[in-house]
Amino acid sequence: MTSTLESLQSRLQQGQTTCEAVVEQALAGASGPAAAHVFTRLYPEAALAAARHADAQRAAGVPQGPLAGLPVSIKDLYDVAGETTLAGSVVCRGEPAAQADAPVVARLRGSGAALIGKTNMTEFAFSGVGINPHYGTPRNPADAAVARIPGGSSSGAAVSVALGLAVAGLGSDTGGSIRIPAALCGLVGFKSSQGRVPRRGALELSRSLDTVCAMTRSVSDCLTVDTVLSDAPLAVAKRPLAGLRLALPQTVLLDSLDETVARAYQRTLSRLSAAGAQLIEIPLAELAEIPRLNAPGGFSPVEAFAVHHERLARARDQFDPRVAARMALGAPVLAREYLDMLDHRADWIARVTQALDGFDAVLSPTVPIVAPEIEALQASDEAFFKANGLLLRNTFAFNYLDGCAFSLPCHAEGELPVGLMLASVRDDDARLATVALAVEQALAAA
Amino acid sequence: MTSTLESLQSRLQQGQTTCEAVVEQALAGASGPAAAHVFTRLYPEAALAAARHADAQRAAGVPQGPLAGLPVSIKDLYDVAGETTLAGSVVCRGEPAAQADAPVVARLRGSGAALIGKTNMTEFAFSGVGINPHYGTPRNPADAAVARIPGGSSSGAAVSVALGLAVAGLGSDTGGSIRIPAALCGLVGFKSSQGRVPRRGALELSRSLDTVCAMTRSVSDCLTVDTVLSDAPLAVAKRPLAGLRLALPQTVLLDSLDETVARAYQRTLSRLSAAGAQLIEIPLAELAEIPRLNAPGGFSPVEAFAVHHERLARARDQFDPRVAARMALGAPVLAREYLDMLDHRADWIARVTQALDGFDAVLSPTVPIVAPEIEALQASDEAFFKANGLLLRNTFAFNYLDGCAFSLPCHAEGELPVGLMLASVRDDDARLATVALAVEQALAAA
Repeated sequence: MTSTLESLQSRLQQGQTTCEAVVEQALAGASGPAAAHVFTRLYPEAALAAARHADAQRAAGVPQGPLAGLPVSIKDLYDVAGETTLAGSVVCRGEPAAQADAPVVARLRGSGAALIGKTNMTEFAFSGVGINPHYGTPRNPADAAVARIPGGSSSGAAVSVALGLAVAGLGSDTGGSIRIPAALCGLVGFKSSQGRVPRRGALELSRSLDTVCAMTRSVSDCLTVDTVLSDAPLAVAKRPLAGLRLALPQTVLLDSLDETVARAYQRTLSRLSAAGAQLIEIPLAELAEIPRLNAPGGFSPVEAFAVHHERLARARDQFDPRVAARMALGAPVLAREYLDMLDHRADWIARVTQALDGFDAVLSPTVPIVAPEIEALQASDEAFFKANGLLLRNTFAFNYLDGCAFSLPCHAEGELPVGLMLASVRDDDARLATVALAVEQALAAA
Repeated sequence: MTSTLESLQSRLQQGQTTCEAVVEQALAGASGPAAAHVFTRLYPEAALAAARHADAQRAAGVPQGPLAGLPVSIKDLYDVAGETTLAGSVVCRGEPAAQADAPVVARLRGSGAALIGKTNMTEFAFSGVGINPHYGTPRNPADAAVARIPGGSSSGAAVSVALGLAVAGLGSDTGGSIRIPAALCGLVGFKSSQGRVPRRGALELSRSLDTVCAMTRSVSDCLTVDTVLSDAPLAVAKRPLAGLRLALPQTVLLDSLDETVARAYQRTLSRLSAAGAQLIEIPLAELAEIPRLNAPGGFSPVEAFAVHHERLARARDQFDPRVAARMALGAPVLAREYLDMLDHRADWIARVTQALDGFDAVLSPTVPIVAPEIEALQASDEAFFKANGLLLRNTFAFNYLDGCAFSLPCHAEGELPVGLMLASVRDDDARLATVALAVEQALAAA
């Protein structure tokens, strides 16, 4: 089941498979060696019940939504009624159980989806790498020879979809946590605008940046899931790539590309250009200001410290030390400095929004490097933080912009996965989805 | 011209006066002894030109808005193109001039109002007293014998309207800065919900609490001005008082009432009850939590310190020392503590909103005391801060609630002014205005 939702639906309609068979296969795979450390919990009975119900409804000709009876994975960040939300931590064990499903979990359940299990993640969603010292690190399925990181923080979400154990992985994106693992695992990730999907019932990392969203195997699958999550479908038009004006920022986003990424990105631009897209290089020098403006501390450390300071004071030794170290950066930041950070960001957003006026989207590599090896990053804090900075750099720019973005696979057969990021300003999701559909089609046709 | 806008309009229509005469009289009064320290700047030519234009239009039968040609005063907080906004300070002298009118100033100008001048205020709008050490303190016109404070921070705004030098005073309300001077000077003040009126071009005190609004001589005058400021009229129904459910919180708001206020408030409640209103005592014990939740520092000190910290570092000796002292409370507050303050407030608002469900409005005295004497508060920091705390206590509760509120005069002839506060939750402005009209009518008929 590494097919798209669309092709799976068509096989279901033609009687070539059943939801029950799909979910059984997913549950079997979830217990297999490739899926080690992907799930922190499975819901076999409930998932099978949802699948059987969908099969019965389909047999009876009852109309159903496109997710009905199909396996969807839930990042461990989200409340499921009756369970303590751990968010990849151990320090939260013993805290009160959630009294209700998070609204997005309830919406997925209401769509008939078979919620197959909770997926592993970076502790408290606080890194782009995907290493978890408590529950192990899911291995990126793209490389059978070398154990590479899946990317994070939605690490298990990505691997569950890449292995075909879920048609969609509910994740979250604060600095790239959907797009980075999507890029490194060869999936489509859609970081929608922050207001589209309710955040209640998700363990907060950064109130200014957190977004609830998902990854899938195609753009249209992402839009299907977005409709369920947001409860309000985007008005997406289909239009050809020809004539679209796509901005190529020359500052920061193209620095330090590795060979695989540079080659895949150049090849992708050539294809898009050949398909008629207008590719326009722009400086967007504002991108170089982000590290200075998002200081001292930065939004995620400051806001995460506010969420976790009591846990840190009580039991810092139970945290992933790398996560605790980043949160601690937020401790000394003054309210005055934080308010300045908010103002600097608002001013920067206004300037960048103006600079992007007249473009249909911004293009860049999602991540400048292919997935690094797990072992090297596990062994060295220096290597870990250097890789983490590189992994987050491009994606974070569009969280800082309060924008929306897709990552689409753009590597060739046999290459390690590379993501192409398409991004735009806040609430431009419908137009961006139109662009993403056109780009996906052009790359498939090439 | 201490008549309402309504009666003034009717005299204009009947040819009993002209806008030019009204503005000339206002300008003459503005230079008289009773108006000492009320204005920091006058615009005689522009105001007279607006008045003459309105007279000519009326003569020609051209339809005009209700403020056309009539004097309106502008609090020194708002940008007027070409002038440096001082906000009652001297430390801002020499800073760049505003490049454009604040949107509310532009809207008033666009309504044809004769902007008569800029009014004095508490430095940076940071106290409820109205004493200004740089520009003097306007005297409350309600007491000819004793020099009493006008209330603040919109001190000059209130006195300009109370003396009949303006039909409306544009002010602002962060903790009570419209309602306190309205109550102490015998006017109607309307603190609308924060999102109703654009705040751009107003020197910020507290981003979480600041509201742009005005005071007038009647509820319907307030609604007329609100329509101009907000660019979107409230859908206000007229309905009788009978049957309205009015909550009377028994916690905090009735503490330390002076005799005049207690008597006027009791008399007012009796009248409203006799007119058929349902007055229902409720504990609303949550009101007692505010000092603990709005700490450390408090929203206004923390957020004002972020606005003014560079000025304080450069020239603290040029500040009103009492204002500087309150801002300095915000300096040591951590970002984590500030984020906690935001969360505590959001939680409190949710609880109080639930407690107020089913009521049409909340009633209390606007201010627990009548206007204190200027001299005593000027002489003693202790007396000043004690009075300031009392003046702000009731009004601030509804800024903290992110709500809306009116203050209506409820004293008898010969008494010092006392305000009756009607309040409700955020964006309940239309219903609250309906209640205010009914209450005003019932009190006038009594």
